[in-house]
Amino acid sequence: MNFTDLTLEELEDYRPDLPEPGGLDAFWNSTIAEARAAGGEVVRTPLDGPIAELVIEDLVFPGFAGDPVRGWVIRPKDAAPRAAVVQFIGYGGGRGLPGEHLGWASAGYVHVVMDTRGQGSGWGGGGGTADPHGSGPAAAGYLTRGIESPETYYYRRVYTDAVRLLDAVAAFPEVDASRIAVTGVSQGGGISIAAAALSSHVAAVMPDVPFLCDFPRSTTRTPLPPFTEVTKYLSVHRDRVADVLATLSYFDGAVLASRISAPALFSVALMDDVVLPSSVFAAYHRLASTDREIEVYAHNGHEGGGPFQWLRQTSWLADRFGAPLA
Amino acid sequence: MNFTDLTLEELEDYRPDLPEPGGLDAFWNSTIAEARAAGGEVVRTPLDGPIAELVIEDLVFPGFAGDPVRGWVIRPKDAAPRAAVVQFIGYGGGRGLPGEHLGWASAGYVHVVMDTRGQGSGWGGGGGTADPHGSGPAAAGYLTRGIESPETYYYRRVYTDAVRLLDAVAAFPEVDASRIAVTGVSQGGGISIAAAALSSHVAAVMPDVPFLCDFPRSTTRTPLPPFTEVTKYLSVHRDRVADVLATLSYFDGAVLASRISAPALFSVALMDDVVLPSSVFAAYHRLASTDREIEVYAHNGHEGGGPFQWLRQTSWLADRFGAPLA
Amino acid sequence: MNFTDLTLEELEDYRPDLPEPGGLDAFWNSTIAEARAAGGEVVRTPLDGPIAELVIEDLVFPGFAGDPVRGWVIRPKDAAPRAAVVQFIGYGGGRGLPGEHLGWASAGYVHVVMDTRGQGSGWGGGGGTADPHGSGPAAAGYLTRGIESPETYYYRRVYTDAVRLLDAVAAFPEVDASRIAVTGVSQGGGISIAAAALSSHVAAVMPDVPFLCDFPRSTTRTPLPPFTEVTKYLSVHRDRVADVLATLSYFDGAVLASRISAPALFSVALMDDVVLPSSVFAAYHRLASTDREIEVYAHNGHEGGGPFQWLRQTSWLADRFGAPLA
Amino acid sequence: MNFTDLTLEELEDYRPDLPEPGGLDAFWNSTIAEARAAGGEVVRTPLDGPIAELVIEDLVFPGFAGDPVRGWVIRPKDAAPRAAVVQFIGYGGGRGLPGEHLGWASAGYVHVVMDTRGQGSGWGGGGGTADPHGSGPAAAGYLTRGIESPETYYYRRVYTDAVRLLDAVAAFPEVDASRIAVTGVSQGGGISIAAAALSSHVAAVMPDVPFLCDFPRSTTRTPLPPFTEVTKYLSVHRDRVADVLATLSYFDGAVLASRISAPALFSVALMDDVVLPSSVFAAYHRLASTDREIEVYAHNGHEGGGPFQWLRQTSWLADRFGAPLA
Amino acid sequence: MNFTDLTLEELEDYRPDLPEPGGLDAFWNSTIAEARAAGGEVVRTPLDGPIAELVIEDLVFPGFAGDPVRGWVIRPKDAAPRAAVVQFIGYGGGRGLPGEHLGWASAGYVHVVMDTRGQGSGWGGGGGTADPHGSGPAAAGYLTRGIESPETYYYRRVYTDAVRLLDAVAAFPEVDASRIAVTGVSQGGGISIAAAALSSHVAAVMPDVPFLCDFPRSTTRTPLPPFTEVTKYLSVHRDRVADVLATLSYFDGAVLASRISAPALFSVALMDDVVLPSSVFAAYHRLASTDREIEVYAHNGHEGGGPFQWLRQTSWLADRFGAPLA
Amino acid sequence: MNFTDLTLEELEDYRPDLPEPGGLDAFWNSTIAEARAAGGEVVRTPLDGPIAELVIEDLVFPGFAGDPVRGWVIRPKDAAPRAAVVQFIGYGGGRGLPGEHLGWASAGYVHVVMDTRGQGSGWGGGGGTADPHGSGPAAAGYLTRGIESPETYYYRRVYTDAVRLLDAVAAFPEVDASRIAVTGVSQGGGISIAAAALSSHVAAVMPDVPFLCDFPRSTTRTPLPPFTEVTKYLSVHRDRVADVLATLSYFDGAVLASRISAPALFSVALMDDVVLPSSVFAAYHRLASTDREIEVYAHNGHEGGGPFQWLRQTSWLADRFGAPLA
Repeated sequence: MNFTDLTLEELEDYRPDLPEPGGLDAFWNSTIAEARAAGGEVVRTPLDGPIAELVIEDLVFPGFAGDPVRGWVIRPKDAAPRAAVVQFIGYGGGRGLPGEHLGWASAGYVHVVMDTRGQGSGWGGGGGTADPHGSGPAAAGYLTRGIESPETYYYRRVYTDAVRLLDAVAAFPEVDASRIAVTGVSQGGGISIAAAALSSHVAAVMPDVPFLCDFPRSTTRTPLPPFTEVTKYLSVHRDRVADVLATLSYFDGAVLASRISAPALFSVALMDDVVLPSSVFAAYHRLASTDREIEVYAHNGHEGGGPFQWLRQTSWLADRFGAPLA
Repeated sequence: MNFTDLTLEELEDYRPDLPEPGGLDAFWNSTIAEARAAGGEVVRTPLDGPIAELVIEDLVFPGFAGDPVRGWVIRPKDAAPRAAVVQFIGYGGGRGLPGEHLGWASAGYVHVVMDTRGQGSGWGGGGGTADPHGSGPAAAGYLTRGIESPETYYYRRVYTDAVRLLDAVAAFPEVDASRIAVTGVSQGGGISIAAAALSSHVAAVMPDVPFLCDFPRSTTRTPLPPFTEVTKYLSVHRDRVADVLATLSYFDGAVLASRISAPALFSVALMDDVVLPSSVFAAYHRLASTDREIEVYAHNGHEGGGPFQWLRQTSWLADRFGAPLA
Repeated sequence: MNFTDLTLEELEDYRPDLPEPGGLDAFWNSTIAEARAAGGEVVRTPLDGPIAELVIEDLVFPGFAGDPVRGWVIRPKDAAPRAAVVQFIGYGGGRGLPGEHLGWASAGYVHVVMDTRGQGSGWGGGGGTADPHGSGPAAAGYLTRGIESPETYYYRRVYTDAVRLLDAVAAFPEVDASRIAVTGVSQGGGISIAAAALSSHVAAVMPDVPFLCDFPRSTTRTPLPPFTEVTKYLSVHRDRVADVLATLSYFDGAVLASRISAPALFSVALMDDVVLPSSVFAAYHRLASTDREIEVYAHNGHEGGGPFQWLRQTSWLADRFGAPLA
Repeated sequence: MNFTDLTLEELEDYRPDLPEPGGLDAFWNSTIAEARAAGGEVVRTPLDGPIAELVIEDLVFPGFAGDPVRGWVIRPKDAAPRAAVVQFIGYGGGRGLPGEHLGWASAGYVHVVMDTRGQGSGWGGGGGTADPHGSGPAAAGYLTRGIESPETYYYRRVYTDAVRLLDAVAAFPEVDASRIAVTGVSQGGGISIAAAALSSHVAAVMPDVPFLCDFPRSTTRTPLPPFTEVTKYLSVHRDRVADVLATLSYFDGAVLASRISAPALFSVALMDDVVLPSSVFAAYHRLASTDREIEVYAHNGHEGGGPFQWLRQTSWLADRFGAPLA
Repeated sequence: MNFTDLTLEELEDYRPDLPEPGGLDAFWNSTIAEARAAGGEVVRTPLDGPIAELVIEDLVFPGFAGDPVRGWVIRPKDAAPRAAVVQFIGYGGGRGLPGEHLGWASAGYVHVVMDTRGQGSGWGGGGGTADPHGSGPAAAGYLTRGIESPETYYYRRVYTDAVRLLDAVAAFPEVDASRIAVTGVSQGGGISIAAAALSSHVAAVMPDVPFLCDFPRSTTRTPLPPFTEVTKYLSVHRDRVADVLATLSYFDGAVLASRISAPALFSVALMDDVVLPSSVFAAYHRLASTDREIEVYAHNGHEGGGPFQWLRQTSWLADRFGAPLA
Repeated sequence: MNFTDLTLEELEDYRPDLPEPGGLDAFWNSTIAEARAAGGEVVRTPLDGPIAELVIEDLVFPGFAGDPVRGWVIRPKDAAPRAAVVQFIGYGGGRGLPGEHLGWASAGYVHVVMDTRGQGSGWGGGGGTADPHGSGPAAAGYLTRGIESPETYYYRRVYTDAVRLLDAVAAFPEVDASRIAVTGVSQGGGISIAAAALSSHVAAVMPDVPFLCDFPRSTTRTPLPPFTEVTKYLSVHRDRVADVLATLSYFDGAVLASRISAPALFSVALMDDVVLPSSVFAAYHRLASTDREIEVYAHNGHEGGGPFQWLRQTSWLADRFGAPLA
């Protein structure tokens, strides 16, 4: 329980040189266009479980390559259009069981939780989405799967799933498509940043201790996994450092942040040994958003602000969106 | 991630010799009578927070010695009498922030969460209840505070708080006093057992990986804290072993279990290194309840069944209580 | 540095009840037949590196589904038919760089090293073989990829690669096809057992501290990864225990060992905390081989006998095969 | 075993901005006046144990609120007035058993050892002093007990005990009241600093690797407990950072040091991961003492100079006090 | 903090089969005779340090091969013959600085502390005795030095030093040679056992958590160093297991204990992870002493009884020796 | 898996002030002259093992004081003079078993491996060389043996062994004495540097992650053993810091590097926690060699470049030496 990175003063000045890879927008435009072209059906099935005061629906939507991706929709019982919050999950986790995510819906929002393909088996209530794409030689974990090129990289599929989920949510009759926020903790924060950069449906972005930013620094200075998966890979493939960093630059939240102009509320923890605070500030400082704030938790590790930050988010979002049911 | 204790076959036969201390019932009867005599007011204050679909109230009730103890009441918006679930919290935690406990109320129950006096500062959203009683020399933590006698022992105050909370809840107009269940994980499970043994208001008990059972074994064979606080205390006070075990016998869930005849649903994890499975079975086997079940999670540590067990509980409780709103 | 399991006396009697899954032989027969039907080319390319006293060739051969799998052939300079040793690699490793495997060829054998698909990025000189097949939700690592069924399980592909490599090696003009041994350490030992059970080309099997045996015990009692990947998966997917153990039974070295009648030299280490000695004995005791020996290293962990065992193997193999160049 | 903090050159310049809280002197003056007003008896009872060459007495004296606090008096057999050394104990320990502290008395001093209220159960021979005051929600340990205000903070009681012990010792007929030194290791060093700042009876102060200094830095950069107890508390009570630091400023050895003008011999260890060297220098640099020295142990952790420093102290103290029996 | 070995009931029955090596007595008789023949001078030099109430002398005496070995003599100021306590030091430590050992002399005994040759650099105040004999290949530490034969083994020299120290002490004019006890913690306890077995001058033996007993079990089941040094050696020299155990049998306290008939007070700790309780009982059960006791500390690790056991020893020894100054 | 030291930019400027001790050259000249004067025989005995394609000989040569030191000679079968590579072994290891070192001979070189006296019992296949010289008080391990003076220091003997081995190898008829390279990993790298500084027979030096450089920094800032052995020694012998650093300066690779003018290929790993990169650069920057290169492995720990670096070395050496068989 120590500061793990630069001082707050230094963090406020931390703006690393992270050049954009050539063809960044083209890469993502064609990726998303292909996924949309692949089509697929959105299916929502109401659950018959113990939650009586809210509606919970099992969601299947078409993601990258049209692959079926699962999620939950949790919402108040009436069907009037409401503001929505789309949430992505931390590394290794899945959408969990119904009943694990009740806050946003209890607060009046349509809440959508996306399963992370191939994960959902490391903690919590689990996930149910396959990743039907193989990869080259990789270290244990997900961070080096397909790292041989941007085209094959695992997070190309995950980020595309997020964009496609936003396509689906914007079309829900119970959702006011002009008021969709994205959020998530750690990996979920990293995906939020990517989703806000790549989807036009995002009206607010609230990443907490977001993972997947500033790969050059994060893969050489972060004490704990999962950034270390890349380090381990490079400790073996000693001749692939430049290639790997080139691939990662297409997925770096600190690069993609420059594509975001929606209002943003970040959080960061100064004792975080999984996501270095500098990597969060690297992304925060690159935002194009003029309306942006960052909450600093000085004495926390990767758990960050937890329920304090959730209350902070509800208040911040209400200031921007008004009441969920307008 | 290994089995940490006996095999399941051995656990099913594990019935340690844990003699009742003399005057056990008298001790608790007079303790509770004194607390009731101390009186104090129950105050419920509705919160003005983001949760729009449920009612959340700040609760203050009189516990041991009439000391004010905090909690939350979370419930559906209407005021018709419903079945209630009273929950106690794991070691080091507190009642948390509003919005952290939404499951039982979303499922239609009146849900009451009790803060643990003096704790609430080790993880999560924190607590807000003082323990205004000092102690003799103690090891860091709560397990050896006042361990010099049953009268001064810390958990005398905590268990009494639980009994007094049940007195209060049974009197809530929104609660059907004949259908109150107690539950909790780890320390919360241990307090549930004590509450079920000591309060006549408990109609069902659902402890998960309950702590505070079978002290003689637990304090010599458990790898991780907090049972080790007692071990550390005895490693210093080498001449107090018999005294300490005598004090603890008044608070041992495996001793108190014989006073429980309500329906019981336990859960236990075979890879638990914080609460040994044997200590859970020691309590389970001493129940006077004829309606009892125990869910065994073979591959889990102290996290136990998590959301799986919560779904299991909702189903088991519905079988016994019917719909929350009868 | 302690004994990690039963005593040697107990190990010599350890014969767990590991029932064969229905259709075991049919499953493997059809799997291998399909792979053979998929065809593909064997390509050997001599390397132009620093090793002047031996020949080293880059090998590509068709494995499961005809997928290209890499390896090395290392051999004396002449082309007369020799006995061969086919080696599989430990978990996370790859075939490495040329020059990492010189022992068997220096001893006069044709030595063939198989890359493990998808791995080769965790330690050593790395690997170069993709695993172009996706999977359902999985824990980090390789042990739970595709674990939803025997058909989709990762090791179905790996074991088939091994069988197909033996098909290829038996056809090398420099190899005496009647004298092919398989060997490997840890995962490499587990694949050796599978190869000996599933390929008719194996005339001797020499697994060291073999992994992938006796899954029911190994996944509940092994202190260190990678068996714990399965444990972690089951700690999340608490409802899939029976299914997962059913899938694994098709790949359990202790089940497959009953299909082996070739001479066998095992090694086991009594302080192994990665592969429990009991799991090795479980396989050893199920061998159909009448000519079998097991070398016990009492004071070693997972490193096992190391160079002592290699010298032991050269001597044992010479007793069975005669000089490599007959 | 590494340097854990700034270089020695940087340490010699380290003078953090630690503002004095308002009313610091008034706070302590009234605290001590109240304790003195509470009165209470000093009782010394000779022990009948194995130590034949020295006198050992059980001591009870009135501390904060007049609470009885225990200690030992160890001294040569004759009763002529001698210089005295008053020692405070490290975190978690107690006064121990008679026979654990023989050095200073064997060297001719009257040696007095103070038990630390509520502690004495974490290591060593134990303690016997209760802390009969409760607290608000706190983390495990003693550092956050009563941290809600200076008035309720645990160390207010401990520091006052120390001042009241000095009142008692100065009145011992066997003590030359003009030659009383205070000393202690770690927490004992921190209490020594406080005692020297708050009691007029202290003629020399010898803290070793003193704890409880420079809370702002220590609670964010110290690797190991117990400073981390505050960190943990603030990781939960994320909204109380300013309040907590304000409370701690009344007890910070680096603030109180400015009230010390007695000769001072400090020691510090550059590999200390429990008490950062910078926090020791922060206190040392704020001393008003003109006669001061600091011994630097470059290759030691929190064990510091151990017996080397004790010999150093005996020599340094003899230079200032002359022979114990003047 | 767990039990680390058998239950107390099992320990009371634990009598391993540890055969005596051939020529055990002859080996030691000739070893000691050679050391006595090598001669050498005993030199005692009074120290001029801070300890005024006792006499402290620097001791040099001839040990194995007449090599000079250092120690301290600490005693009351008068020179009348007294009972003596000879103490040996734990692994890695040395005699320390003057002032570190004051208990036995303060209790009226002549106390002699022996430095351990070649050690004295791992903790505490250090040692000052060389071991001028080399060794074959060895693991880090002292336990495998010279392990190639009993003649060359390191502890042959150490045990002989102890016997020669007893020769010297028995001749001190201030010592009553009929009342000499040996004691020590851990390695010091192991040397005590050896000294009591090999020297006729020992009238009482008080080993605490003695090391160096029951090598076959201890080198395969002890979690922590230093027994693991032997394990590590054997993990490399896989072909030397029988030889090494044969060498060690000449030095095993559980073998040598059968040569002890003096009164004995042992202590053992059931949570000891450095010296397994079984190994202590193995030695205790082989004592020829009819007057023997063992103090069991159930909740302690290798620190054992600490100051409690010292008080126990002073009482036990007084019962056998009477007052130190008869 | 983090950077463990300065940034690469800082490393490239890191030139610590490490003064040469007085009489450095005289010390080594007389040391080597004495060893040569002690004489002794070089014995090579061909092995009769499994390696058929190369010649392996058991080597005994006279080292420091003429003590017999073992090694292996591994070479192609013909006897024509070839370039030679002399390799030294990492800390705790030995020459191992025949068959462990086949790379350089397979590449056409005469390869000579030196056993490290007294070690060879910590990992791998072991060693067989005694160190028949005792030492003063020392910490566990080899780094503080004889540290009381340069004359008695353990590495005086080891470095002299290396020089004497080069004397022997230069006289082998199968070796072209003008083309001898030295190499080794970690301690083997440190000995390589010393050998290149002290022997005129070295025509190229290739140390990998070399140990034993820049003792003042390494003994205060390296996280892991074995540099910490010195730290531990100084944590006890707190009064010997200057003496110890004076002794070590005679053996510091960063001091000795100034005596090297042969072509040099270093390697260093930026995540090394056993040998800090700064200590490697300290030596590299002091080389007198004009032909020098350093390979930087950014993502590796102490394993460094492994097989990548070996391929790099074969290519670099061929550029300087031409084909092994000229």
